[in-house]
Amino acid sequence: MKVFNEAIVKNTYKMSDAIQDIEQLFTDMDGIHLAQRTVIPTGDGAKSMLYMPCVHTGRQLGIVKITSITPENPQNGRPTTQGTIIVTDLETGEHVASLDGSYLTRLRTGALSGIATKYLSRENATILGMIGTGGMAFEQLLANIEVRDIDRVILYNPTISKAENFKSRVLEAFPNLTVEVVDDVKQLVEQADIINCQTQSAEPVFDADTIQLGTHINGIGSYRPDMKEIDNRILPRADKVFFDDIEGVKEEAGEIIEANEKGIFKFEDVDGDLKALSLNGTLQRTNDESITVFKCVGAAHFDLAVALGAYERLIQQ
Amino acid sequence: MKVFNEAIVKNTYKMSDAIQDIEQLFTDMDGIHLAQRTVIPTGDGAKSMLYMPCVHTGRQLGIVKITSITPENPQNGRPTTQGTIIVTDLETGEHVASLDGSYLTRLRTGALSGIATKYLSRENATILGMIGTGGMAFEQLLANIEVRDIDRVILYNPTISKAENFKSRVLEAFPNLTVEVVDDVKQLVEQADIINCQTQSAEPVFDADTIQLGTHINGIGSYRPDMKEIDNRILPRADKVFFDDIEGVKEEAGEIIEANEKGIFKFEDVDGDLKALSLNGTLQRTNDESITVFKCVGAAHFDLAVALGAYERLIQQ
Repeated sequence: MKVFNEAIVKNTYKMSDAIQDIEQLFTDMDGIHLAQRTVIPTGDGAKSMLYMPCVHTGRQLGIVKITSITPENPQNGRPTTQGTIIVTDLETGEHVASLDGSYLTRLRTGALSGIATKYLSRENATILGMIGTGGMAFEQLLANIEVRDIDRVILYNPTISKAENFKSRVLEAFPNLTVEVVDDVKQLVEQADIINCQTQSAEPVFDADTIQLGTHINGIGSYRPDMKEIDNRILPRADKVFFDDIEGVKEEAGEIIEANEKGIFKFEDVDGDLKALSLNGTLQRTNDESITVFKCVGAAHFDLAVALGAYERLIQQ
Repeated sequence: MKVFNEAIVKNTYKMSDAIQDIEQLFTDMDGIHLAQRTVIPTGDGAKSMLYMPCVHTGRQLGIVKITSITPENPQNGRPTTQGTIIVTDLETGEHVASLDGSYLTRLRTGALSGIATKYLSRENATILGMIGTGGMAFEQLLANIEVRDIDRVILYNPTISKAENFKSRVLEAFPNLTVEVVDDVKQLVEQADIINCQTQSAEPVFDADTIQLGTHINGIGSYRPDMKEIDNRILPRADKVFFDDIEGVKEEAGEIIEANEKGIFKFEDVDGDLKALSLNGTLQRTNDESITVFKCVGAAHFDLAVALGAYERLIQQ
């Protein structure tokens, strides 16, 4: 078994690769077989181990993503979530590689937003507003930059110093971007062409009444029923609403579950999943005044797409 | 993540360690949490991937054993079953090691027979009869040698050349043993103090009527309902019958399931599981004329015991 750590995977496998590999997988889903995620509690609160296996019989490769959740870790300078992905060659039965799963998870989550932005946001979108500047944010930025000519980024985080730190990181990577931090989320919402939310907030992080016509919203933060970062009153006003994985969103996305329960927006009102959006392959908004929303919770086949893509590139080196 | 291949694990972690670690785990089972095994078919027939996670919250370590079954492999000189065990440190959430899972599986299966032999066979047992000389056999031999003063080994395999090859391997490792190959299983059954069966036979591999008083039988081969290596007519005549894991045996061991269905031996007639046998800690047979039987199908917590034991020794080096 070869071990590919975060630095090596990062150096070889980029956002453009991840977007391409996920869209490619949508054309070749028949060979995918996955099993329900296994969760074992390992301590107090959310402390747990997660196991997500998925195979592609056509490509004769399989993965299992193994993730530890250690809530007390940030106090000790370690990440809460740590992942590794084990790749098995089904032709030979050999367990061939261990890939850093944390970077690949952030990258694929970014790629999902990137695909949504590509087919839903205005083609002339240039201003990206980012609500939440934590661990998932950088790859969300990369994804939007990959598919739209973003020249200005507006950052909001309840702890301003964290937004400032993130701004420095962005400017180091992209010196030509204009990056500003705002202390009122309304300033962001009223200016952004694309709003990308990556928080674990239990309350809406913006006010639906302040959303401008023509805005596209990506929500990738709420992945549990108690998390509700998107103000779900925006959903009935949206021209198009897409979910990455409809069954997953029904079970995990707090603001969408609430919208369905309250009759604000029923699950069946969704325009489709990310696969449908990608396979259609054309801009889905009706006009430049449309509001569009993408909600994402993740699914094992997206991990499969990036893990196999990364593995195949890494072994060619 | 550190990768420990078969050679390294083999060099560090021995049969005596495995027996000790499994018996030690029986005294400390409260911290064990496991999830149902996940199986994903990956091709024709038995081709599949198996995922078996298990954690020990007290020791704050977790494992998942990942096993590929590739039935066509022997035609290409590769093993049918290939395993790897990923160890996670639950204190830090870090995925710390990959251990060769094939050797550890053979070793723990041997150790289970070793524990059974220690508490069930006659203390003066010296003759070991082995039915089946395939991939699991060598560690079964090691286990019996570990707990009894075996000086003679009788081998039976339907393909005699395979038994002869195994004899050479045994003599190379243990030149002081007397090893013979028989072409009629009856010659083995009539002489052996301990009969160890490791076949995938759908039919009994010995005739219960030929079993001598005082014999102990270990059956580790049948792990599916269609496999029935032990002649189950021996069960009602046995003084003691133990299973490694009672629930597992009820679901997987073909000859025991058949015995229960036909009323030859009901599940509830079992004297206990391996944990009870080990915790009792004394010889369980009534006298030197007793026939005793141990049936084993494996379980995730046995893998946990040897994986954590091996990991802890390997990182101390």
